Amino acid sequence: MGDLDVYKQQGFGNRSGFGARPALVIVDFVNGFDDPALFGGGNISAAIARTGELLAACRRRDVPVAFTRVVYAEDGSDAGVFCLKAPGLKILTEAAPASQIVPALAPRAGEYVLRKTQPSAFFGTNFANWLISKQVDTLMVTGCTTSGCVRATVIDSMSYNFRTVVVTDGVGDRALGPHEANLFDMGQKYADLLTAAEVIAHLEGKAKRAR
Amino acid sequence: MGDLDVYKQQGFGNRSGFGARPALVIVDFVNGFDDPALFGGGNISAAIARTGELLAACRRRDVPVAFTRVVYAEDGSDAGVFCLKAPGLKILTEAAPASQIVPALAPRAGEYVLRKTQPSAFFGTNFANWLISKQVDTLMVTGCTTSGCVRATVIDSMSYNFRTVVVTDGVGDRALGPHEANLFDMGQKYADLLTAAEVIAHLEGKAKRAR
Amino acid sequence: MGDLDVYKQQGFGNRSGFGARPALVIVDFVNGFDDPALFGGGNISAAIARTGELLAACRRRDVPVAFTRVVYAEDGSDAGVFCLKAPGLKILTEAAPASQIVPALAPRAGEYVLRKTQPSAFFGTNFANWLISKQVDTLMVTGCTTSGCVRATVIDSMSYNFRTVVVTDGVGDRALGPHEANLFDMGQKYADLLTAAEVIAHLEGKAKRAR
Amino acid sequence: MGDLDVYKQQGFGNRSGFGARPALVIVDFVNGFDDPALFGGGNISAAIARTGELLAACRRRDVPVAFTRVVYAEDGSDAGVFCLKAPGLKILTEAAPASQIVPALAPRAGEYVLRKTQPSAFFGTNFANWLISKQVDTLMVTGCTTSGCVRATVIDSMSYNFRTVVVTDGVGDRALGPHEANLFDMGQKYADLLTAAEVIAHLEGKAKRAR
Repeated sequence: MGDLDVYKQQGFGNRSGFGARPALVIVDFVNGFDDPALFGGGNISAAIARTGELLAACRRRDVPVAFTRVVYAEDGSDAGVFCLKAPGLKILTEAAPASQIVPALAPRAGEYVLRKTQPSAFFGTNFANWLISKQVDTLMVTGCTTSGCVRATVIDSMSYNFRTVVVTDGVGDRALGPHEANLFDMGQKYADLLTAAEVIAHLEGKAKRAR
Repeated sequence: MGDLDVYKQQGFGNRSGFGARPALVIVDFVNGFDDPALFGGGNISAAIARTGELLAACRRRDVPVAFTRVVYAEDGSDAGVFCLKAPGLKILTEAAPASQIVPALAPRAGEYVLRKTQPSAFFGTNFANWLISKQVDTLMVTGCTTSGCVRATVIDSMSYNFRTVVVTDGVGDRALGPHEANLFDMGQKYADLLTAAEVIAHLEGKAKRAR
Repeated sequence: MGDLDVYKQQGFGNRSGFGARPALVIVDFVNGFDDPALFGGGNISAAIARTGELLAACRRRDVPVAFTRVVYAEDGSDAGVFCLKAPGLKILTEAAPASQIVPALAPRAGEYVLRKTQPSAFFGTNFANWLISKQVDTLMVTGCTTSGCVRATVIDSMSYNFRTVVVTDGVGDRALGPHEANLFDMGQKYADLLTAAEVIAHLEGKAKRAR
Repeated sequence: MGDLDVYKQQGFGNRSGFGARPALVIVDFVNGFDDPALFGGGNISAAIARTGELLAACRRRDVPVAFTRVVYAEDGSDAGVFCLKAPGLKILTEAAPASQIVPALAPRAGEYVLRKTQPSAFFGTNFANWLISKQVDTLMVTGCTTSGCVRATVIDSMSYNFRTVVVTDGVGDRALGPHEANLFDMGQKYADLLTAAEVIAHLEGKAKRAR
């Protein structure tokens, strides 16, 4: 029996579906993660392009949008165990070019930009309460890396009981093996897997029905 | 360039090491996850055996020990999105045989048994504050599944700035592909990977030095 | 200039109002807090009576209802600093009569009963995610004590961006000075203060309009 | 029977004491809270002076120090229910003079400055994990207001199982009634109440013993 059969037999891999009030979070699409010489590579640049299309659709439909950045203090006062495992992260300070959101996805006024020092967009941030203030019930996730901050964000999103959608071609990783392995895990247990085109179609259809 | 080279070049995969005050958490080693007909299979039973050896060493050295169980209310009042993705989890109620810790690892009085409804041992629980009350700085993680509740617990452990050790042969999964893929991710970014024997040797050595 | 003038001049004390989806939480109305020989006294019994009326109204309108209990492990494994300040709390174990919800407010199947060890209903619990799963935007708070677990719950409720209503005659305390002082603080900064009758009228009116 | 007798009879008001590893948090001592025309008044300026003395002692003994600031986004994207109750808070943006720490307590490199949007220093921040990274077991709290962000921080500190000390003359409020009422509540249930001089004597004595 293959892996997939085991998951199916044990009752995993069902769809949680969309609710009525989606939001989009774009995880760590900053310059440093779009640069293979720093933390980028793999399919990240392609995922940024797909995210741009979804972002445009969300803006047309007034879907709330949040962006995350990894930001550490200049003096290292908030560097912890994550920076022991990956010391290079400490270059991501407030003013560093590497920690700025990529120009193609530049946030607009009123969109929420949150700083974080840990993998999940929820850890040590006001993301959960921001989502509550917007009455969101569904979180669509793009960003990078699939096997890192996306995965951590998706676990917390589901744990907070937001229906969660991973945009399969809107998330990227420096290496394709971990990308695929994490999509599998998330699809089986935490989130629905949909392409950017499928999500956009859902948003457009929903908006039409609401008129 | 292979995947591992990319991670190395970008500065991932360093050791965070042990601190001075370790604790052990045993994630979801309950009957239902030791039963291939429910949620078990793969290398889970072997991981329970290795965990038994580490548990005995921790008890000899008075290392704090915590166990997690997944427990949902009988009336379904606390079932959320996780139970949409995997409805079978709802059988894990307080009194269900499937949700009891396996006999080989039965908790003793004074060891902490925590109930959870989400993947991470930290989410919606008092685990962080229990670790603080014990002045723990290092969390050793065994349990199942590697690609599920272990991974989620490890991300949060590291995010809370506990030095984190995944006991490679003390964690198990229903399928070996996800097991291996998640060990890779955790070792690169969140935790040190050590065998039960290596961890036991560390604990014994440490205790000797302290005398 | 009196205290109230200072708060008014500095812009505190505005109403946050009701949203569209209220829920009711009943904090720690368990036998031990209805017994002046244990943790009760003051106006707690009267507050239980008023809460009974509001609970009935919520049940008529299908407003989600949650109850909290303080529950510590029999073996003391989860007692922390709170139990240093107030050691008597440790008698509140799962089976202790003192930790059972008062008969007048007995929960029904499907209503959420949450165990906690800290003052706030949100700390170390799945309350936030339960509220998210019910798409709640407004939390109505009754229970005891006003100066203890009610106050802590209200701060967190507001911090999570739930519009928060303290039911002034549905919350009680063992001493009236702290009761009044905490109502003042909460009304100025965190929550709207309304009587049970006012809240019931709002719920009834809202339901009528929705038909 | 007076209020105090009730608390004593019910077993409240015990000391939790100091542990071995204290840290100091200075809550919201920013210009806007030192200005009676904005959010200040009462005994806040005096509390800043006492805090300066304690801060100097902590620096001499290498006790970890953290500061909090309330900081909202310029575009209002993170304003929630707190800003409905007190809209004036929205002026506290990153660059606003009112949100800068008072010059008398200017942070030094390596001291932790955390931004928050909610009352508690722990809510939506990395304060808990920073304290864990420093292996802190005791949190000493100064700042303002006693009835607001200090109280909220103290509840969370105790809930996370940090032994908590409120520095009675190092915390201040715009109005003395709420100041006194909240000291009473905190002393009975959450924290020990000590003057700055008493805390300094403890730190000095402790350091002497350690030599």
